[in-house]
Parts: sequence; structure tokens; C-alpha cells
Amino acid sequence: MTEAETKPARRSIGATRNPASQEAILQAAEAVLLENGLSGFSIEAVARRARAGKPTIYRWWPSQAALLLDVYHCRKKVDFNFPDKGNVRDDLRAYLKGLLATWQGTSGAIFRCVVAKAQGEPEAFAALSAYMAERRLQSRRLVEKAQERGEVRADVRPELVTEMLSSFAWGRLLTERLDISDEEVDAVIDTVLAGIVPRPAG
Amino acid sequence: MTEAETKPARRSIGATRNPASQEAILQAAEAVLLENGLSGFSIEAVARRARAGKPTIYRWWPSQAALLLDVYHCRKKVDFNFPDKGNVRDDLRAYLKGLLATWQGTSGAIFRCVVAKAQGEPEAFAALSAYMAERRLQSRRLVEKAQERGEVRADVRPELVTEMLSSFAWGRLLTERLDISDEEVDAVIDTVLAGIVPRPAG
Repeated sequence: MTEAETKPARRSIGATRNPASQEAILQAAEAVLLENGLSGFSIEAVARRARAGKPTIYRWWPSQAALLLDVYHCRKKVDFNFPDKGNVRDDLRAYLKGLLATWQGTSGAIFRCVVAKAQGEPEAFAALSAYMAERRLQSRRLVEKAQERGEVRADVRPELVTEMLSSFAWGRLLTERLDISDEEVDAVIDTVLAGIVPRPAG
Repeated sequence: MTEAETKPARRSIGATRNPASQEAILQAAEAVLLENGLSGFSIEAVARRARAGKPTIYRWWPSQAALLLDVYHCRKKVDFNFPDKGNVRDDLRAYLKGLLATWQGTSGAIFRCVVAKAQGEPEAFAALSAYMAERRLQSRRLVEKAQERGEVRADVRPELVTEMLSSFAWGRLLTERLDISDEEVDAVIDTVLAGIVPRPAG
């Protein structure tokens, strides 16, 4: 079970006993997903394609959901970066629009699947929880930076604000209502920024 | 395997050919759920308990998720009513706290299960979508009433506001973070009501 990696290129093509690298397995997982769809995705198919043993895969990813989440994360990184536009309105708008847009493709299908699995499988839940905890730390920076610039009140809890936006996007993803107008996005951002009560006169 | 139940009370007791009423099936479904848990829940078990044919059940509920959602809705009605406290802050706070509290029990487990199933089964998705569309119409009334009282600006989209709160609760349910402090609830409500940008002087 020791791994004598003698890897060239980006994918291991060695004999079956030559364990594939993490990177090769991730690439194989993505290829299996794109070819077979989510319903045809299995650790077995990934192992076959990566020419890796299933135990090797399970050593790094304790569940199918954990592997799917890593594929998701790699794909998402390509399309989605935390915005840094210098003002809080544009940053939050770009953050929300970015989530909604990214999830309209394969990334959204993968993430829905992981969220669904997490409701029944403890390993999937653990993988999703760890991922989300990290994402919350990253996304709260959007609001913290705005606080440093004086654009957002110091008493505001940064994490709660971005959680409100990402939860809204989750809700849209899970009910297949991602395709929303710019006006709706702006209404959500306006609510978070300025609230819904009447503006003081003057 | 036949259950010679000679039960009086609130449940239909006809012979197997005597189709059980919807109400009896719902009660049987709830009983099966409480006894066997979600993993032991099946249309078959419900049919046995209600002494109904499976086709009878499927005529009314095209999927297990649809039946679960009805059980959920019946249970939730007991604990959860749309608040009407005469002011928008208390109404929205009670709405959000009500969702978070209701979901800490069995209702939450059922709803999570339905949301998860909806990500893979078209019938479950249809049932959830229909349910949510109706709920959105009901919950938006909270904001509309506040607009009628002049507490909320007329240009605000009522549905979007309650969706932001319910999505936040969905996110907490699906990541098992329902147990939140009153301060956090207030921070969410404050954000929706008054926003996060600095308050105008004076």
C-alpha cells in the first residue's frame, strides 16, 4: 500500500499497482462526472479511470461526497473569485451574482448533490461542514474590508452578512430558481445594505 | 404480515379493499415515521399500517417525499403560525425564530429529508416546489402588512424579504446550525430592517 509515485504528466497512467496521485484522481473524477453525469459517478468508476485502487481513493476522500466536493471546489475556483472592487456594494453584488451564475452549470449540479448527500450521510455532512466553515471565513473578509474602509458599521457581524447572501443563493439553487434578474439581485443587496424601513427624511 | 388491528379512534379501519381516507393515511404515515424513523419510512409500511393499498396512497401522493411533506406540514401547523404582532420587527423576528425552533425537532428532520430527495427525484422536487410557492405567498403577507402600516417602504419586494429570512433558516437547517442565539437572530433582523451601512447623523 506504499505509494511509489513516479509520476510524469498530470495523470497517472501506470499499472494498476501504481497508485495515482491526488491530482490524477481529481482529474479522473471530473472526467467521469462529465462523461457519466452524477448518476453514473462512483468511486469505482473513478478508480478505474485513474488506474488507482479504491483504498487509495478512500484514504484521501472518505466518501463520494468528499471527492465530489473537491471536484466542485476545483471547478469553481476557475469561475469564482472573491471580488475586490473597492466598495461594499459592488463586492457584495459580485459575490451573490457570482454564486448564482457559477451554480447554473455543472458546479451547481455537483454542489446540490453534495448538499443532498450531506443530509443523510455523516461523512458527506462532515465534508460539507468543513468546506463551509472555511468558506465562511473567506467570505466574511468582504464585509471586514468594508468595515475597515468605514463603509459598514463596526457593530455588524461580518459572517452573518455574507451568510445571508450565500443562504439566499443556496435556497435558489435547491429550488432551481437561480435565473434571477439584475433587479432582484440589486433588491437583495439593497436590503442588506440599507434595510427596508423608510429612509429618514433629509 | 397482516396486521389485524381492531383500532377505534381516529383511524379508518375498513378491510384492505376499503380504501383508507387521506386523513387515516396521513396519521399512519406520522406513526410510521415516529416509530421507525426516516430510514424505516416507506410507502409500504404506511400502507400496511393504514390498511390501504399502495395504489391508493400513490393516487394521492405521487412520491414518498410528497407524503412526507404533508406529514411535515401537518406537524408544523401545530407549532408554527404566521405571526401577527402588529409591528414588523416582532413579526419578522417571530417568523425567523419560529422556523429555527420548529426545525430543531422531528419537523426539521422530515424537511431536510424532503429537500435532499428533491435534489434527485423529480416528483419530490415538484412537491417541494409547489409547497414552497404557496409558503412564499403566505409569508410575504408579513411584509405587505407592514407596508400597509407604513413601516416598510413601498418599493420593497415583500417576497424577497421573507425569502431572505427563510433561506437563512434553510442554510442553518441543512448545515445543522439551528441553535443560534437571540443576539444572532436580532442581528439578522436588524440587517433586513435597517441595513449595515452607517446610519445618517442626526
